[in-house]
Amino acid sequence: MEKNFESGNPRKIAIIGRGNVATHLSEAFKGKADVCLVNPHTLEGIQEEPDLILLCVSDDAIEALSRKLHDIDSVVAHTSGSVSLSALKDTGKHYGVFYPLQTFTKNIPLNYSEIPVFIEASSPEVKNLLYEIASLFTNSIHSAGSEERRKLHLASVFACNFTNAMANIGFNILSETGIDPKVLLPLMRQTVDKLKWQNPGQAQTGPAARGDIGTIGKHLDMLKDSPELREIYSEITRFISSSLKI
Amino acid sequence: MEKNFESGNPRKIAIIGRGNVATHLSEAFKGKADVCLVNPHTLEGIQEEPDLILLCVSDDAIEALSRKLHDIDSVVAHTSGSVSLSALKDTGKHYGVFYPLQTFTKNIPLNYSEIPVFIEASSPEVKNLLYEIASLFTNSIHSAGSEERRKLHLASVFACNFTNAMANIGFNILSETGIDPKVLLPLMRQTVDKLKWQNPGQAQTGPAARGDIGTIGKHLDMLKDSPELREIYSEITRFISSSLKI
Repeated sequence: MEKNFESGNPRKIAIIGRGNVATHLSEAFKGKADVCLVNPHTLEGIQEEPDLILLCVSDDAIEALSRKLHDIDSVVAHTSGSVSLSALKDTGKHYGVFYPLQTFTKNIPLNYSEIPVFIEASSPEVKNLLYEIASLFTNSIHSAGSEERRKLHLASVFACNFTNAMANIGFNILSETGIDPKVLLPLMRQTVDKLKWQNPGQAQTGPAARGDIGTIGKHLDMLKDSPELREIYSEITRFISSSLKI
Repeated sequence: MEKNFESGNPRKIAIIGRGNVATHLSEAFKGKADVCLVNPHTLEGIQEEPDLILLCVSDDAIEALSRKLHDIDSVVAHTSGSVSLSALKDTGKHYGVFYPLQTFTKNIPLNYSEIPVFIEASSPEVKNLLYEIASLFTNSIHSAGSEERRKLHLASVFACNFTNAMANIGFNILSETGIDPKVLLPLMRQTVDKLKWQNPGQAQTGPAARGDIGTIGKHLDMLKDSPELREIYSEITRFISSSLKI
């Protein structure tokens, strides 16, 4: 018998995982779907015939977990940026990817309605279901194939993980002063907010963008005890100079 | 005669400069002081006996401009992160630094009340005046000597200019896809907002923080046509790994 993707409200969603993605997604769906947070080791407590099983586990665990779900006639989707759709092919006929582009942290609140969700699916019916379910909490829903998702993931390493590393270096530089490093936060916030109006190529400021060799030299001198930070400073300065020349 | 730092309200402030700092500061003081935006070349239109003359010009132009103001019995302050207080010593007796830690862009709105202002002064009276004037628009006022201010400026190059460079790389990676690179903005916003609750050392996530060598290898492979970006990726990945080991 063909699977019937229609259902009475609310949708039943089983979220398998114990980490921050699982916790935050279950919070995002709260009051909007019948959500169940399921331990990936025991799989206990999963609803009867959920519309969607969302795998919120580490990349390495996705394929093995999906095989355990072979007998369940639900759509199964993983939530990873770097794992292909095909990793779920042993699950059964109906599978997809539901990739939320966000950094999820325990006990730190999030505006769920702004989280971009990237969808890939084994069929148009699965795609429709994943769009419908994403729309329960967000207005930003997109299609992305496995190759595009890999690029999104790489881009987010620069935009999120490496931005945090830049903040870390800034905080470390101020730690030797009596100044609370949190004074950097309004500046960082504005650096991001500007990008609503300007692309980062236009928005680039600072000594590297001005070609201010005097200040760059002074900064490298201040970093003379840290070859690692000097190298990072030089490389990014070179990138800014060359990207503005293009 | 000793200078009298008291004055009737409102304070008279002459802002000398034509750039974004000058424009934004005059906007910040709007309705809160008698502000005059003055062309640095002609110095025309400066008020009679302003309480404060704020120099919002490039670092190289500060010293020469301050000498031109030798005869005026106003407090003179520059707004630069990397220029010493002593650059103003030829101005006369009363001088200081009024350094707003923010990125100022034409036509992009700002929450002035959050901008940290760092003050250094030639005397306690000047310091009091600069605090009073900063408090017209912000709640975040701090003392910082020339050495601390240099560190603030270096920290802000990482936190602002280099963060923008990370965004630029992320946007470039997505430019080859059909995806609007602005999908990265909620992620970047949250990356910054998290730092209200966690320091960046605790907040670090991503493949480098997890020691996920498989993903790091895939990312380096995706960057194989850009030695510059590979180098930046590797250096920052090394920094994250080593900073988490400490």
